[in-house]
Amino acid sequence: MSAAPTPTESGVLRPSSGKALLIDGKRGSEEVLTEIAEKVRGLAGQGLKPGLAVILVGADPASQVYVGAKGKAAKAVGFHSVQHDLPATASEAEIIALIRQLNADPAIHGILLQLPLPGGADATRIIESIAPEKDVDGLHPINSGLLAIGNLSRALVPCTPAGSMILLEKAAAALGVKLEGAEAVVVGRSNLVGKPIAQLLLGRNATVTIAHSRTRDLPAVVGRADVLIAAVGRPEMIRGDWIKPGAIVIDVGINRISVPSHDPAAPAKTRLVGDVAFAECLDRAAAITPVPGGVGPMTIAMLMSNTLKAAIQIAGLKAAH
Amino acid sequence: MSAAPTPTESGVLRPSSGKALLIDGKRGSEEVLTEIAEKVRGLAGQGLKPGLAVILVGADPASQVYVGAKGKAAKAVGFHSVQHDLPATASEAEIIALIRQLNADPAIHGILLQLPLPGGADATRIIESIAPEKDVDGLHPINSGLLAIGNLSRALVPCTPAGSMILLEKAAAALGVKLEGAEAVVVGRSNLVGKPIAQLLLGRNATVTIAHSRTRDLPAVVGRADVLIAAVGRPEMIRGDWIKPGAIVIDVGINRISVPSHDPAAPAKTRLVGDVAFAECLDRAAAITPVPGGVGPMTIAMLMSNTLKAAIQIAGLKAAH
Repeated sequence: MSAAPTPTESGVLRPSSGKALLIDGKRGSEEVLTEIAEKVRGLAGQGLKPGLAVILVGADPASQVYVGAKGKAAKAVGFHSVQHDLPATASEAEIIALIRQLNADPAIHGILLQLPLPGGADATRIIESIAPEKDVDGLHPINSGLLAIGNLSRALVPCTPAGSMILLEKAAAALGVKLEGAEAVVVGRSNLVGKPIAQLLLGRNATVTIAHSRTRDLPAVVGRADVLIAAVGRPEMIRGDWIKPGAIVIDVGINRISVPSHDPAAPAKTRLVGDVAFAECLDRAAAITPVPGGVGPMTIAMLMSNTLKAAIQIAGLKAAH
Repeated sequence: MSAAPTPTESGVLRPSSGKALLIDGKRGSEEVLTEIAEKVRGLAGQGLKPGLAVILVGADPASQVYVGAKGKAAKAVGFHSVQHDLPATASEAEIIALIRQLNADPAIHGILLQLPLPGGADATRIIESIAPEKDVDGLHPINSGLLAIGNLSRALVPCTPAGSMILLEKAAAALGVKLEGAEAVVVGRSNLVGKPIAQLLLGRNATVTIAHSRTRDLPAVVGRADVLIAAVGRPEMIRGDWIKPGAIVIDVGINRISVPSHDPAAPAKTRLVGDVAFAECLDRAAAITPVPGGVGPMTIAMLMSNTLKAAIQIAGLKAAH
């Protein structure tokens, strides 16, 4: 009954120098966080304060930055936020003992183990020790299974795929593109990103193709996509002339590349690029996420969203018993 | 190093009246069951006898036939086999109490709840009460999740998808077709068949498209398939001229249709057909499963295969503790 929203009304789309609209993940993330903060204020009246525990094993500088950002975001939306630092030498049994304690802690609704573990240790058994209803990273096999069987009301979905879908849905709504029946191509089949996004797209009734390193004619497969999700982790691998004109492009890749300098004495510079050759796509895509500033900022927002969902579900479960 | 097998050597392929080879599920099933019976004889020497418990709620005649066939197959391969009949009036709590007893029974390695439940009751909580390592139907969310994350050594995979893959692999090997990089199209996205098959095809490095009722141009999508899996449950919906010449076609559908009679006084006759218009495909496909006699017979064989796998895994787990 209402008119289709124009791109400027969507809040997250803005014009680029080419034809494509840019999907602004920073704005999208702020919208999600604002909404969560409002809900947290509402829950406070019911005596519920969502709690997030982040576990950092070792002292990897990048991991410290990520964990710090997660704790800061949790406090900003009004969550109870705790961080547990374990030494790099912590054994699997010690990490699991801490998780069991957090599983039983009624003030904690979300448990996040910062990955990777030091030395690339296998995290499978540790992740499976997290109570599935507190697994806000969505990595426990039960959450993978609930997503696979389409039980989205119960599943805790991995954060990057969930954030990608929000940006996609905003772009599709603003452009008047229907996801139902659209040809969606996901390039990359990781358990963290590619496979969960394929499940989410299927849940929105898209025709979904999963392509990967063994795909024979990747440009042709990408060229079929009304909706393209790039999640391969290879800088600018997907070229502009592969893209179907009018496609929506969600670029999940965040790759740091070195920038050539004319001054050999200058310190080496780097910059972030996606899996898609962004500049080449601006004349062909209808909308595209930039890197940085696209999917990246959505991930922490979705971690907060999962923690809120976990808190509400756990409280509901308690109320039902 | 060895020559490629000819179709006749594969044991399950035989010529049809058209160009396509027929993939014989009855032969495929016998091969699997023979192999299982051999392994069971070997395990007996180690004191391990796989045990399968089948639970039938109510007295639906079709379900009684299926349950009877499963028990018979279990005994034929040398399993311990028990059947538990509960009245149609059994409560969820009563069914779960029986399952808990079977979960704890060391003589039982596989628990199968015959579906559907009487009156179409929701089986979600009951299925989740089955110990995941005894869930030989592969319906527990943990098994869906292990399949989704590609942990095929641990996952118990639903029987019909697993059986379909065996026939596909036999056909591909005999024809010299590589699944890696092949365009595979799965029509249908049920949790029982379509979605698990898509995961299995991805595990074999195919480029996988999942199509369904909302797919816009199904004939065009089907026409891309080097490997076509039809799992929609609509009689002969997929027509011969949709099929890419040389494709391998696995028809999972088993649909009973009425056969028109010239004699209006004669009793109504029915016959079984697949989701694919079989006769139309014989000149285009390289290989196709007939209905009946294709995927159908594989399902019970894979139930036995899952029970054997469960028994070995449970015994291994015990030995490790």
